[in-house]
Parts: sequence; C-alpha cells; structure tokens
Amino acid sequence: MTEIQIAQSVTPKHIKEIAAKLNIPEDKLEYYGNDKAKLPLDIINEEKVSNNNLILVTAITPTPPGEGKTTTSIGLVDALNIIGKKAVVVIREPSLGPVFGIKGGAAGGGWSQVIPMEDINLHFTGDFHAIEKANNLLAALIENNIQSKTRSLGIDPRTVIWKRCMDMNDRGLRNIVSALGGKAGGVPRETGFNITAASEIMAILCMASGLEDLKERCGNIYVGDTWEGRPVFAKQLNAEGAMAVLLKDAIKPNLVQTLEANPAIIHGGPFANIAQGTNSIIATKMGMTLSDYTVTEAGFGSDLGAEKFLNIKCRAAGISPKTIVVVATIRALKYHGGKSLKEITKEDVEALKKGLPNLERHITSLKSFGIPIVVSINAFNSDTEAEINVIKNHCKKLNIPVALSFGWEKGGKGCTDLATEVVKAAESCTSKYQPTYSLEDSAHEKMNKIGKTIYGADKVVLSKLAASQLRKFEGMGYSNLPICMAKTEKSFSDDQKLLGRPENFEITIREFEIATGAGFIIPIAGAMLRMPGLPATPAAERITIDKNGVIEGLF
Amino acid sequence: MTEIQIAQSVTPKHIKEIAAKLNIPEDKLEYYGNDKAKLPLDIINEEKVSNNNLILVTAITPTPPGEGKTTTSIGLVDALNIIGKKAVVVIREPSLGPVFGIKGGAAGGGWSQVIPMEDINLHFTGDFHAIEKANNLLAALIENNIQSKTRSLGIDPRTVIWKRCMDMNDRGLRNIVSALGGKAGGVPRETGFNITAASEIMAILCMASGLEDLKERCGNIYVGDTWEGRPVFAKQLNAEGAMAVLLKDAIKPNLVQTLEANPAIIHGGPFANIAQGTNSIIATKMGMTLSDYTVTEAGFGSDLGAEKFLNIKCRAAGISPKTIVVVATIRALKYHGGKSLKEITKEDVEALKKGLPNLERHITSLKSFGIPIVVSINAFNSDTEAEINVIKNHCKKLNIPVALSFGWEKGGKGCTDLATEVVKAAESCTSKYQPTYSLEDSAHEKMNKIGKTIYGADKVVLSKLAASQLRKFEGMGYSNLPICMAKTEKSFSDDQKLLGRPENFEITIREFEIATGAGFIIPIAGAMLRMPGLPATPAAERITIDKNGVIEGLF
Repeated sequence: MTEIQIAQSVTPKHIKEIAAKLNIPEDKLEYYGNDKAKLPLDIINEEKVSNNNLILVTAITPTPPGEGKTTTSIGLVDALNIIGKKAVVVIREPSLGPVFGIKGGAAGGGWSQVIPMEDINLHFTGDFHAIEKANNLLAALIENNIQSKTRSLGIDPRTVIWKRCMDMNDRGLRNIVSALGGKAGGVPRETGFNITAASEIMAILCMASGLEDLKERCGNIYVGDTWEGRPVFAKQLNAEGAMAVLLKDAIKPNLVQTLEANPAIIHGGPFANIAQGTNSIIATKMGMTLSDYTVTEAGFGSDLGAEKFLNIKCRAAGISPKTIVVVATIRALKYHGGKSLKEITKEDVEALKKGLPNLERHITSLKSFGIPIVVSINAFNSDTEAEINVIKNHCKKLNIPVALSFGWEKGGKGCTDLATEVVKAAESCTSKYQPTYSLEDSAHEKMNKIGKTIYGADKVVLSKLAASQLRKFEGMGYSNLPICMAKTEKSFSDDQKLLGRPENFEITIREFEIATGAGFIIPIAGAMLRMPGLPATPAAERITIDKNGVIEGLF
Repeated sequence: MTEIQIAQSVTPKHIKEIAAKLNIPEDKLEYYGNDKAKLPLDIINEEKVSNNNLILVTAITPTPPGEGKTTTSIGLVDALNIIGKKAVVVIREPSLGPVFGIKGGAAGGGWSQVIPMEDINLHFTGDFHAIEKANNLLAALIENNIQSKTRSLGIDPRTVIWKRCMDMNDRGLRNIVSALGGKAGGVPRETGFNITAASEIMAILCMASGLEDLKERCGNIYVGDTWEGRPVFAKQLNAEGAMAVLLKDAIKPNLVQTLEANPAIIHGGPFANIAQGTNSIIATKMGMTLSDYTVTEAGFGSDLGAEKFLNIKCRAAGISPKTIVVVATIRALKYHGGKSLKEITKEDVEALKKGLPNLERHITSLKSFGIPIVVSINAFNSDTEAEINVIKNHCKKLNIPVALSFGWEKGGKGCTDLATEVVKAAESCTSKYQPTYSLEDSAHEKMNKIGKTIYGADKVVLSKLAASQLRKFEGMGYSNLPICMAKTEKSFSDDQKLLGRPENFEITIREFEIATGAGFIIPIAGAMLRMPGLPATPAAERITIDKNGVIEGLF
C-alpha cells in the first residue's frame, strides 16, 4: 500500500470526537470540514504548560529522504496513548511547493500518519496562503512607496531586502527584475521570491505569543534603507495592521488526528536549515495545555532543528523538554559510514560501525543541554539483527536508552517500547535545559559556542562582507538577538560532503541576514537556497484526481 | 455607521439554519467555521434548474464607485423572501487585492450585505488562493520544462503567454524579467503577473460543469509555442491532474447569508472588463436548484457583464434569465450628462436629462435579447423628487417598468417594490433569450454584431497585429469559440472619455488573447491592465485588528 492508500483506508472521526479527548468544549472549535478545526488562543493555560512533559524528537544527520522524525513522533504519541498517557503530537504544516517536486508530503508515513493527509498536504486551512498574502502585501506597500511622489520615505530601491514569497517550487522566481514597463510599472530593481516556508512572516507566526505580539513583530520587520542609509521598518509603511488582519485565522492552531484517532495539532512550518524549523510556540503551548505528554519535532538533524528549538524557541516561550528523542536509521548510519544510497539496504556491519560517530556526535551535542536522551531506531525491513545489536550495544556503552520503533509498519503498537523508555526518561528529568549561549554574549561569541558545542567545529569565521554586515546590525541595536543558523542539513559542517562526524573544521559565515520581526540574526554558512526548483520529472505529473474525487499519486 | 459596523452589528445565524431554508441536508455541508459552508456539486438538479426564475442584475455605464448592483441583488433577494418567494442570491467572490487599494470590498453595502463580511473580503474559503496555486503550478512546470535537458518540449521562451498570478494590487509584478542568476536559475525571459481574478484559471472555474470538465479545460490551456511554432498545451506538461487536485475544493460553491439571514451563494470572481464577469455556472445552477428565484449579477455595465452573461455563460450552461434588472443611479446619469463626480450630489434635472440616453442605450441593447427588463433606481439621499420623476416618466415612455430601491438604507423592505415588478416581469417571460451572434459566425462577424447591437458602434476594426493573431487562432481551429470582449467599463466605446451614449464610433481591437481552456477568444480594445497598482494612500494603511479580534478600516 502507498502512503496515500493507507491514509485513505481510514475514515477520519469527526473532529469534535478528537477535541472531546482533550476536553475542548465543542463551541471552541472552528470547523474546516468535519475533520479539521482551528483552536482559539484562549485555550492556552500557562500553569498547565509548566506541568507538561514536552518531548522533542530530533535526528541524526539525515539522508535526502529523511530519517522519519514525523513518523516517529506520530507513532510515539499513538503508543503513549496505548500505554495510558494523555498525549498529543504537535508538528509543522507541510509546504505545498515540495509536494509537486520530489518530496511528496510531510504528514508522517505508513501507519503513523496524520489525516486527512491530502488536505494537510494541499491547502489545509489556508495558513500558508495567509502568510504569503501578508508577506506580499508588505512587498506591494514597499513597491508603492518607492513609486510615491507625495508620501515617499526615500527608500533606496537597491537596498530593499524584503522579497515576495510563493509556496511553489519555482526556480524562475528566485532572481527577477521587477517593476519594468515604464513609469506606471514602478522603479525597476533586482529582487526575487522565497518559498513561503522561508519567509520571515512564517518565522514570526511561529514565534508570536498572540495576535498583538504578531502585529508588533510585523511592524518591526526591517525592509531596507533610505537613500541616506537609515533603516526602514514595516511600521513606517503602516503595514502591520493589515498584515495582522490577513493573519487573524492563520495564528490559530489546527486540530486533526492520527490514523489511530489521537489528537494532532499542526501549525506553522518554517524550514530548519534557513529558519527555526519547528511549529509555532502557540501550538506547542496549546498541546502542553491539553495533554500530559506533548510530542513535537524539530527539522533535520539535531545540529539544526534541536539547537534552534532549545536556544530560540524554548528560550522565548519559557518552556523546556523533559526528554529528547534522537531518531536514527541503520540505513543512514551506513551512509555516514561511506556507502551510497543504493548500497545501504544491504547488511553491512562494518559500514554501520564506521557511521556510528555521527550518532555519537549528536548525542554529545545534545548532552550539553542537560536533558535526558533516548535513541529511537526507526526500523526498516532491510535492517538485520546483527546491525540492530551494533547500535544497541553502542548506546548501552554510552549509557543512553535505546528502543526500536516500528511506527511506519505498525503504528502506535510498534512504538510502545519507545514510549516506555520516553516516559522513564521524562520522569527522571529534574531540571530545565541549559542553553548553549547567553543572549548577552556577542553574536560572534554565540556562533562560536554553537559551532564548538553543537557542531564540533574549531571556530566560526566571518567573511569580510559578513563582518561588516554584523557590525551594521550590532550598530542598529540587535546584539541581544538569538542566532538562527542557516547551514546545510547534510553535515555538521558547512560542507555537505563531510558526512559522519567531521573534525578539525571551521564554519565560514558568508553573509548575514536579520529578521527583526521574528527576532533572529541569521548567519548564512554556504549557499542556502530559499526558493527550490522542480526536479526533471516533477511529482506534479503523476498527481491527479478521478471523477469520484479520489486523489492519486500524491505520494 | 460604516459598512463594517453595520455588518458587525448582526450576528450571523449558524449556516446550517440557512441551509435548512434551502432544504439542504446537514450532512451535505462542509463547514468553514459556523457561518460558511461549501456545497457539494451533486446538489445540482438540471430539472429544477430549468424551472427556476433566474434574474440578472446589470447596470448602466458605471461611475468609478459603482452603481450598486451587488447591493441591489442582495436587497432584491431579501425583498423576494419578504413577499413570499423562495429566493437566493448568487454572486461573485471579491478579490483580495483591491481591498487593500481603493475599493474596500464587494459584498454589497449598507443593510444589503452578505456576511461574514470580513471573511468574505479576506481569504473566505480559500478559492482564490487555490486558483492562484493552480495557475502558478502550471507556470512552474513551464519554467521547469524550458530548463529541462532530458524532457524538453522545445518551448520557445519568448512565446510563453502563460503568466503567473497573485491576488494583490502590486504594479511591480506587472512586467518582470524572470529566471535570472545563471544556469541554475532557469532561462531568463520577459513575463509578468496578472491579478488572480484575471487569470484563465478563474475563467475556467466559472465555466466548468464539474471537476472532470475543469481538469480537461486545464489540460487545454495554450501556454506558448515550440521553437518550430507549434502550439503547446498544458496537457503536454501533464499539468491538468495536479491542477485539478489543487482546485478540488475551490470548485464547490460557498454558502453564506445576507444580513437578513437569507441564503447567498458566492463563488468565483472573474473581472468583467477582461473576463466573463460573473460567478460560476456551477453556483448559478446550484442556486437555481435550491430556490424559485435566483438573483445574480454580472459586472460593470450591461455592455460588458450582461452581454457576456448571456452570450457566453447562459449559452454554455443552457440557462436563460426571466428578467433583466438594470440598476441606474441619478448621480451616475448626471455624470453622463456632463457633471463631475463632485457636482452630482446636487439637484440638476437638466444634467439628468442629458444623461438619460446612457440608460436608454442600455435598454435598447438589452431589448435585443428578448427578455423582460426592469429599471431599478438605486436611491441616494441626494436624489430629489423632481429627478426621480424624470427617470420614471422616461421609463414609462419607453414602456419599461421602474422601481425605486432602498437596499442600502433599508435592506429587503426597501426593495419590495422592485421585487414586485421583478416577479411580474418574470411571470410574463415566455421565451429564452436571443443570442447576439451564432457560434458559427466568424470571429470578426461576432465582434461586429456585439459592436453594433450592444455598443451602438458602427463597426469593429482590427489592428494589423490583431488581424494576424486572429488568423493564427482561426488556423488553430478555434473559430467557433464565443467572444469575451476586453474593453473599458467606462464607456460603450473603447474610449473611456466618451460618456453618455456615444455615436458614430468604431471599436478598434488592438490585439487578441485566447483562453483555450475557458473557451474564449479575447479581443482587447485599448490598453487593459491585468494587474492593478495601489493608490497613493492605500486602504491597507487604515486596516487593523485590535486585541479582541475586531477589524477596523476594512471599509
């Protein structure tokens, strides 16, 4: 069975039944069809948040198809419910663009999925569309102000850093010249589009504590400079009110269900290589209000998602996980041990052993946060007992609990061992996480601490351009912002070819961006694309719908 | 009270109560919150459609603020319900872009509005967003094919006529150069964005008979030519399946309510100057299935909206109105009589008389369809009795029933006179409408018939470019398509300065476009903008939301 066939084989329960499991009164639900609902922000209860067991699911350095963090998160929540815990999974919304490219979707896999899978992977409740509109309204207002004779802020068109966005893999929009066609068409300039998940509005939505905070953050967005070199912010364009109006529903988390009819809250979807890579703070707090165990994930390997989850999101939200689950696959560890993607389905204990330092480095990095760790081996048919024993023994040596999980094949009942280990670990957790850096550290100091503690790098060096940009941002008064690293997900280093556990390397920051609304300084290590393209044979060509409304080819 | 304050003063009933008025079973409703629902296509019953009284609301040549067709349509439906008829209003969805510009919204006015007004004017149920995605997915697939080494269709980038779209007034996107940045960025070319309401996907959605037909129409879209000059269609890119998947919910009409809790179906929103200017065929048929009287509107003056409503939409759908209501305002007739927009609120019987030929010409044009006509004077406080009597007497002389309507001020009870006249007229209607041209006529013949019969022009002439384009399209086998004129809404002629009733003029077709999916040949008279800009002080600057979620400044 394909992912979509499995998803279609289960009829979703009415969402009010799912809400009832969380004791949400029916009149709080804003329905989107029978199987999706938005939840109002006043559900959040800070006291309940502080008593919750938050479980973060992260991973080793992933291979291109991913190691199954979302699948594990969903399977774990189903399993926690099986062993008698009131648990909810809180995850990101998938981006539409990649659905038509290679990726398919991002709603779990096999028997650990969230449904209605098609809707979640398509327009869902329109959050991404609303983010896109808010982003592009600001762009239109900037364009209009540059064109204005009477109300000009004197924006130098060459300095505008605010790009438009679109949730579509369209390489042709990456770099454009806009506003051609003579006087009525505006002032021509070089610009481009980001994919919506990479826009600062997405980051803001996921950092905001509420609608007022969201509005203020929108006003604080830095868009470019005047001809005199003074920074211009969105609030000078009176943009934040209309942007907040466009986001008034998008800020509300979405309730859906797993295939086993357990509650899933899905909200926000920033990428983890260029943004913070985790769902909204609001959704996490809502999950924590409504359950005893809240399972969430942060994108890519722990060097990206988990680091930002802790140093950016948990710090801002005042929350702390009780356990961190590291998802590893035997396939991926063989890949880190030097095998090609084609070879990793064959038994190869030697390659696996050679790849183990990658897992070990993730464990070392995560230990710095002082939170209990559990390793979850996301099982594949190709795994052999000999291979499984190698990881198990290695984890035993490191004194880290380990569990095999079969979420893809068996759903929740395939993850009860993991759930048991997670509960044990969470119950043993006695303290809050230890951040990697203090907000009072200088930006360079912060980066060096991330580089050394998390990546295992010798140091972080700045290009000439980066150094001058950082001086500018510090001069603007943004020294105390946290760091949101933009780095390849394929390696601990900034060189995607350095698999396994690279050593004796430096991280070079090519340039900086700043997201003054979201509240990040973004060092860019290497060339990070913010607008993907489609592959030679896009998934879109296989996707269709028949006359009965049944969708094919989505996965 | 402002429009939004009036709208906010009425608490919408639960949409299932509105559905109950139409005898729609509750399990057919797909809720979007408590006050909006999507309706499945299987509700449509062709026999009921054929027994319905369809009422078309059109207007004289409008002034920039519009003459109140939507307000009249909503007031009329409320009034029909008051006088004991089972009536539903079926109208277009407003476009988001203009909401942030000058226009405000398009959900009626005063006490004749549809609610929830804010949602309807913002994201509503996401139909425009879905249309935008389907449009832009095709653009991404074209871009990707041009870039492809292995699967190239040999598309000549200079010939690509398919543009991206965005529902935002953003002049900077009107003309762009895309795909810059070297090899990985694609093949640079001149292109641009249309506003979403102007995209062919919007036209297709409104012409489609169902999801299968929609998919087929998407496949039939002409996107450009190969280097050898052969036409390339969307189906050659295998695009139509994924496009239909993106549109699977957008194709379902939306049920909302008037301020007086009567049913309103809102679906699709093509502009009337460049596209067909009326809601979807599916929505009209659904309204006709569910009621005895279906009131609908077609954009701008009768020369644009009504002509296309009859010759394009009614012909394709096999439906025919029982009465055509022509909305006139005394203000606008004084404007056509030579007064400025500032002067038209003062009594001026002479100017009014000088403007009457505009109304008369609309009546003459509409008479050619052979359907009963009723004139509705949309009342304003500034109207005087002397002025009102001038129109009334003039209509009496022309033997056309006339009624004053006070929808803005009084809602349904302000429109009962109009409702009574409409019922009388509809009951007197014994035949189907007479089209202006036959599909077998040549394109030039069709245009000449529209020009002479509807515009009162001497003839329609083609530029050299237009003539050669038409030869190409006829050579491609599209001679039998109906004509969708793109012409200014400000005059019967193609010169927006010729107010009133122009005479002795020609219509010049500058160029042609063709919408092979929607099924139109589009002659373009004059310079028609498909992407508006924002005004000097955009409405966006006034729009905001407070911490209780109350929106201000939307109107």
